[in-house]
Amino acid sequence: MGEDERALLSADVPEWEVIERNGIPRLRRSYRFSGFGDALEFAYAVGRAADEQDHHPRIVLQWGKVTVDWHTHAIGGLHRNDYVMAAKCDDLYTAR
Amino acid sequence: MGEDERALLSADVPEWEVIERNGIPRLRRSYRFSGFGDALEFAYAVGRAADEQDHHPRIVLQWGKVTVDWHTHAIGGLHRNDYVMAAKCDDLYTAR
Repeated sequence: MGEDERALLSADVPEWEVIERNGIPRLRRSYRFSGFGDALEFAYAVGRAADEQDHHPRIVLQWGKVTVDWHTHAIGGLHRNDYVMAAKCDDLYTAR
Repeated sequence: MGEDERALLSADVPEWEVIERNGIPRLRRSYRFSGFGDALEFAYAVGRAADEQDHHPRIVLQWGKVTVDWHTHAIGGLHRNDYVMAAKCDDLYTAR
């Protein structure tokens, strides 16, 4: 993925940042909730959408907060799919 | 909670270790799975059991692995409830 494509894809998911963890760049966003139950349901919805696409995030669930990381294992970094799934998460958050 | 009570409770959940994160002791166990979907369902079951008890863990979900942390926010450490919920997680894992 070239810089131009990355810039274009990033513009669609402005709330996501690229972080590095264990030497691998990842897309990350934290979502806020008013309690645990609503955070749980969101995490579950993200997980189901991920499994349908066979593209699997790391999800950290805690009271009032869900953090989602995407990267593509096969390339050890970011692929277009990661941005697509990030946008899908934003849609699920908006649609709650 | 005294040392004696802690030792007794720990004996019931031998797979859990006490770790420290952000200066707070927590109970932690990682569970292994053969894929993402089964890990997701387990994380969701733990989350629902937690919400029913109004005692909320931190859950990290990734492909093939779920890590659960328990601590008691109000005391900034470990309470009997954390051990009870740890045992509940083990039961859910066994019952899959």
